[in-house]
Amino acid sequence: MLIALIKAIMSNPFFKNNGPFKITEIIKFLDIKVKISNQNFDIIDIKDLFSSKQNDITFFHSKKYKNIANKTKASFCLTTETLKNELPKSCTALVVDNVLVSTARVTSLFYPDSINDDFDKTATDINDTDYNNKVIFGKNVLIGENVSIGVNCKIGHNTIIEKNVVIGDNCSIGSNNVIKNTLIQNDVKILDNCVIGKHGFGFFPINNKNLRYPHIGIVLIEDNCEIGCGATIDRGSMSNTIIGKNTYLDNQIHIAHNVKIGENSIIAGQVGIAGSSIIGHNVKIGGQAGISGHLSIGNNVEIGGGSGVIRNIPDNTKVMGYPAKNIREFLRDNK
Amino acid sequence: MLIALIKAIMSNPFFKNNGPFKITEIIKFLDIKVKISNQNFDIIDIKDLFSSKQNDITFFHSKKYKNIANKTKASFCLTTETLKNELPKSCTALVVDNVLVSTARVTSLFYPDSINDDFDKTATDINDTDYNNKVIFGKNVLIGENVSIGVNCKIGHNTIIEKNVVIGDNCSIGSNNVIKNTLIQNDVKILDNCVIGKHGFGFFPINNKNLRYPHIGIVLIEDNCEIGCGATIDRGSMSNTIIGKNTYLDNQIHIAHNVKIGENSIIAGQVGIAGSSIIGHNVKIGGQAGISGHLSIGNNVEIGGGSGVIRNIPDNTKVMGYPAKNIREFLRDNK
Amino acid sequence: MLIALIKAIMSNPFFKNNGPFKITEIIKFLDIKVKISNQNFDIIDIKDLFSSKQNDITFFHSKKYKNIANKTKASFCLTTETLKNELPKSCTALVVDNVLVSTARVTSLFYPDSINDDFDKTATDINDTDYNNKVIFGKNVLIGENVSIGVNCKIGHNTIIEKNVVIGDNCSIGSNNVIKNTLIQNDVKILDNCVIGKHGFGFFPINNKNLRYPHIGIVLIEDNCEIGCGATIDRGSMSNTIIGKNTYLDNQIHIAHNVKIGENSIIAGQVGIAGSSIIGHNVKIGGQAGISGHLSIGNNVEIGGGSGVIRNIPDNTKVMGYPAKNIREFLRDNK
Repeated sequence: MLIALIKAIMSNPFFKNNGPFKITEIIKFLDIKVKISNQNFDIIDIKDLFSSKQNDITFFHSKKYKNIANKTKASFCLTTETLKNELPKSCTALVVDNVLVSTARVTSLFYPDSINDDFDKTATDINDTDYNNKVIFGKNVLIGENVSIGVNCKIGHNTIIEKNVVIGDNCSIGSNNVIKNTLIQNDVKILDNCVIGKHGFGFFPINNKNLRYPHIGIVLIEDNCEIGCGATIDRGSMSNTIIGKNTYLDNQIHIAHNVKIGENSIIAGQVGIAGSSIIGHNVKIGGQAGISGHLSIGNNVEIGGGSGVIRNIPDNTKVMGYPAKNIREFLRDNK
Repeated sequence: MLIALIKAIMSNPFFKNNGPFKITEIIKFLDIKVKISNQNFDIIDIKDLFSSKQNDITFFHSKKYKNIANKTKASFCLTTETLKNELPKSCTALVVDNVLVSTARVTSLFYPDSINDDFDKTATDINDTDYNNKVIFGKNVLIGENVSIGVNCKIGHNTIIEKNVVIGDNCSIGSNNVIKNTLIQNDVKILDNCVIGKHGFGFFPINNKNLRYPHIGIVLIEDNCEIGCGATIDRGSMSNTIIGKNTYLDNQIHIAHNVKIGENSIIAGQVGIAGSSIIGHNVKIGGQAGISGHLSIGNNVEIGGGSGVIRNIPDNTKVMGYPAKNIREFLRDNK
Repeated sequence: MLIALIKAIMSNPFFKNNGPFKITEIIKFLDIKVKISNQNFDIIDIKDLFSSKQNDITFFHSKKYKNIANKTKASFCLTTETLKNELPKSCTALVVDNVLVSTARVTSLFYPDSINDDFDKTATDINDTDYNNKVIFGKNVLIGENVSIGVNCKIGHNTIIEKNVVIGDNCSIGSNNVIKNTLIQNDVKILDNCVIGKHGFGFFPINNKNLRYPHIGIVLIEDNCEIGCGATIDRGSMSNTIIGKNTYLDNQIHIAHNVKIGENSIIAGQVGIAGSSIIGHNVKIGGQAGISGHLSIGNNVEIGGGSGVIRNIPDNTKVMGYPAKNIREFLRDNK
């Protein structure tokens, strides 16, 4: 049930919601002018147009979400002068200069911990925790707050399990890893020198001082996965980053925020998958291949080593090249 | 002599052989039916068709090894119904559904430690070992069982020398490294954050739960090599992974299992070499180039940065591109 | 002022100059024969042709520097028989077989610490330093000699600040980093598992035993930068490696020696920039792109993911491909 929720958009079990906030507090925080009838109205969360309920605030920044916007149940919506008329009468528009920046700011208000990725000061020597006789562990292992570890697990030397980590049963975590905001199911192997659950590379570029947006998603690693040495797997921003059951990652792989990889997939060394791309089941990706952001790669797809994928790929397709194309075409063009 | 042996296929100085096993034990373990005349016959090792002796078990999975198969000295051979007739009379066929899976399973029986890459619990603070006054070392250095270190060596902070490591003289190992199952000769430098000697990305894909195959090979790093920061060098599966004398690796390089690199080669940052490829002497590889698996790259070859090599390359050739081709052709096509 | 100096060629605040040396000592060290009138002449430093003053030794190895050579103020110059006549009369030529090798050797004489990148033995537990109540720090943090840290900084678990590091105010350094020979300004974030300030991949290839050349440059990271997980940023050899203000680097990026990146640039995951390339301001580089050495990339340039840049790129240009070309051309050729 928890897993089903985590797989859905915009839910996370880890970040504390600092709300509710009065709508007037939020308006003051945004420094905008808008007339509100019920000034004491409580806002309990920020969610997308679809997931929002009456006491949520939502955001609407692009015409392509028009059909969802006009059915939103949220009572307030961050949006633009142009888009505001698409909202239902039950939803008051809060017109702002930059919807996504304002959304980031309001999200930070609700989830201040989600923007701060400083090292976890709460992490303490495992010898001083309840896990000292439940886990087989190396030297200098640290465990943060809100960590839960199942039976028959191993954690290697110098590994730091920062706050907000759930580890299932029979997992083997190697040495020199940093893990936070991550839910690891059963029989998972994580080798050495990985960083998992850090925020992604998401921010609004502003001259002199970029604005980071909050990452309230987590990383979910399902049963029987193996994560190779030197992996970096970023947690999601508004959704979660997911590695499906029995998927194996070789060394030096980078998985960006919000990426979802299906089950039984095999990803060779030095592959990089950019933000929000969705990879199917039984997918094979050759070494050093790269996949651009916001793409959809079907089931049973094979991507040749070194490929650069910049378009969606349908099920049961073999591709190779940069940009990646059908492998027969690639081999014919490169005889 | 040891080095010569290590360079040969299927020999390793580190993994304990749990044999001998009676042939009947092996047959029972594989759950197959076969009639054996001498049920007490001792099997002492598993080796390839060529290296096997009378008391070894071997494996034969592809017609292309026919000419070696019909001369094998092994008394037993894992093979298929189709191939079994190629074996000499002295060799009893053990017909199995999947030769390589069965080979992996029997190898695990002989070398159970070669399949387990959990962190090394035997690693202990160097201050509590005999090396505390023979090596110059940093804080939090750990040394596992079966480790030998020569004179005038340095080992940096947080570095974990796990079990089965031999380090020669005058070596400088940096900080945050994890090294196991590795033989390092003299005057070698290993910078920081490397993982060396871990098993490779080798397994049989099986839905829901892949089957790892054992890696009984080691990593051999010869005299005067330098290994850059963030390298991952996997040990071999049935043979060894070798970095030849005076070869320099830049940062963030991935060397997969069974790769053999010659002497005096220069490999720039972020290069990846897939499993079992063999690279010659005096080879120069530009940054981010990738080399597919099972290839043979000649001596004095130059591979341009960013290249994707998917075919063998003869001696004294300069190539570039993806797929890599003669550099003159590449430059002409890309004016 | 310090920063201005550091941005200039051939100045570093960290490496101790072991000079002065008598010119006769240097000549003896080089094992060359040359007649010197004033045998007691003091050489205080080695610098390039342009920066040298009367008491410096310089080097001149290529005809393309002829116009600078004939105005050098240095009293002595390492050069070749062919080039020596370009020098002014005030400058005595020291003819050597290989100018760059001799330059490396003399630089090592002045700056012996710049060639040795062994782990820093002087690094000590932060609890035993003056920073124990000025910095918020994790477990097992080490601080070397000649380190200065500003106010309101955080340093994560297992991070090693080796010698010669200046950290400004409000910096957040994550866990498992190794940093040396680096000047970090204010409000900088460095995530986890980075190695910063190590020597670059610079050496003279010599069969059996390459000759490393000294790296007397540093790494300069300006205000508001963010460096992602697993970065390797090498210090400069004769100049410095610079990451400009408010530039953000994603995970697993490799920045080679002497690279200079401008302000407000955005560099996605797994990008590699080879030695001595100069990147402008407001540059965006997509994931896994590679940039060859000694290139000049203009301001406001956008480089598509996976590109391989092998030529200079003028301001305000969008490129993609391998080799990278104008993005319209790339998209047209790859419809």
